[in-house]
Amino acid sequence: MNNNKPLILVTNDDGVSAPGIKALIEVMSEIGEIIVVAPDKPQSGMGHAITTNETLYLNKISTENDAISIYSCSGTPADCVKIATNEVLKRKPDLCVSGVNHGSNSSINVIYSGTMSAAIEAGIEGIPAIGFSLLDFDWNADFEAIKPFIRKITAETLKKKLPQDVVLNVNFPKLKQEEIRGIKICRQAKALWMEKFHKRKTPQGRDYYWLSGEFVNQDQGEDTDEWALNNGYISIVPVQFDLTAYHATQQLNTWNWNE
Amino acid sequence: MNNNKPLILVTNDDGVSAPGIKALIEVMSEIGEIIVVAPDKPQSGMGHAITTNETLYLNKISTENDAISIYSCSGTPADCVKIATNEVLKRKPDLCVSGVNHGSNSSINVIYSGTMSAAIEAGIEGIPAIGFSLLDFDWNADFEAIKPFIRKITAETLKKKLPQDVVLNVNFPKLKQEEIRGIKICRQAKALWMEKFHKRKTPQGRDYYWLSGEFVNQDQGEDTDEWALNNGYISIVPVQFDLTAYHATQQLNTWNWNE
Repeated sequence: MNNNKPLILVTNDDGVSAPGIKALIEVMSEIGEIIVVAPDKPQSGMGHAITTNETLYLNKISTENDAISIYSCSGTPADCVKIATNEVLKRKPDLCVSGVNHGSNSSINVIYSGTMSAAIEAGIEGIPAIGFSLLDFDWNADFEAIKPFIRKITAETLKKKLPQDVVLNVNFPKLKQEEIRGIKICRQAKALWMEKFHKRKTPQGRDYYWLSGEFVNQDQGEDTDEWALNNGYISIVPVQFDLTAYHATQQLNTWNWNE
Repeated sequence: MNNNKPLILVTNDDGVSAPGIKALIEVMSEIGEIIVVAPDKPQSGMGHAITTNETLYLNKISTENDAISIYSCSGTPADCVKIATNEVLKRKPDLCVSGVNHGSNSSINVIYSGTMSAAIEAGIEGIPAIGFSLLDFDWNADFEAIKPFIRKITAETLKKKLPQDVVLNVNFPKLKQEEIRGIKICRQAKALWMEKFHKRKTPQGRDYYWLSGEFVNQDQGEDTDEWALNNGYISIVPVQFDLTAYHATQQLNTWNWNE
């Protein structure tokens, strides 16, 4: 072990066998000593779920001869970070990276994202963390184009140190490398999903539903992640886990609470 | 139907049969016309998970003669709000209330909370929303003491209107009614869970883990929810779902991103 190398925890929400995490492992291997602890199955849309009512399994997938230690865990992305820091890693890692997600985690998707919940969980534990997502849901998406940018963003983060209690939400447009216009620091666009439930019947005649929906960006701001991505930029949103709406405190204090 | 009465969606994360939601239904029935759509089983710690890879079932539990329409859903708390607004409710409700949770959702617990994810989901959809939690994990916790406060907070919220994109996270201390000192608007305390994994063996000899941990409040501020609750007050934290760490933007813009 080279002690000068940063220790990097790699995880995701699409599962340990997803092409996106393989791309991330390749880049991180050039930068530091890495340990992979990722879900044993896809966990998209798991938000910040944790597993307290069920048992967790942790399996070492790599063998003694492999250069990288890889574990799969039966839990959620947040569980993976918790079990990695408590049961796998010998010391607190210098960085946690999550992804590369197959699909966007921009704007309101940060709330539903398993990828970002892993990064946020690391942030809560005081570990600098970055979530990476590519705006391409295809399992065979092309991650080559974004590798130089992942390398750059990671190196810069390790060098400059993130502000306390802030993690990065990085989204890549689905473009060729030469089409990407650069990196922009953004705010989360105000957007939502207009749900559409597909109602069907089981072979036995019972109604059931599939949740799907249409993404609606309600925000025309040119400082948002949606604008950046739609205009050929990589978006980076600094994300916090103090959810207090400080701007609302004064107004709420004028309400009649204690009479 | 009395059209002057507010339409209130009631949900939770402990499941439709939990005593906490029964207490909430009782109070809300005095205030408005209510519809209940809650998980068919406990969903604690589900964070903002949504169900996109599995089917969803929606069951009407109440009969035609019942005063209140009650549905159970096989999904998460966020799913319940989505399916309620899309498939059950005839119009956008005037309020969504979630809880009363059996256990705290103060400080960092807001991130893991299914109760609060339902409230936040409603907020994203533009519905005023409140999550209620009692600091008592007991299934047979005493919800009588807090009913007058739930009534007061709900009435005030309906009357004064919440700031846009803000939902309320209300936590009640485990105290007798006369011991409660009042209501305080607070910020989310900086806290975390120090995990402890219990490692055990299955009857077949395979290792497995239970996730548990110790709650550590790292915040001595007297304006926090933890301080309020420890000092006999009901805490109300205004919660936002724009996670952008605006204070970090300037610093990140000085980094060397595009060379």
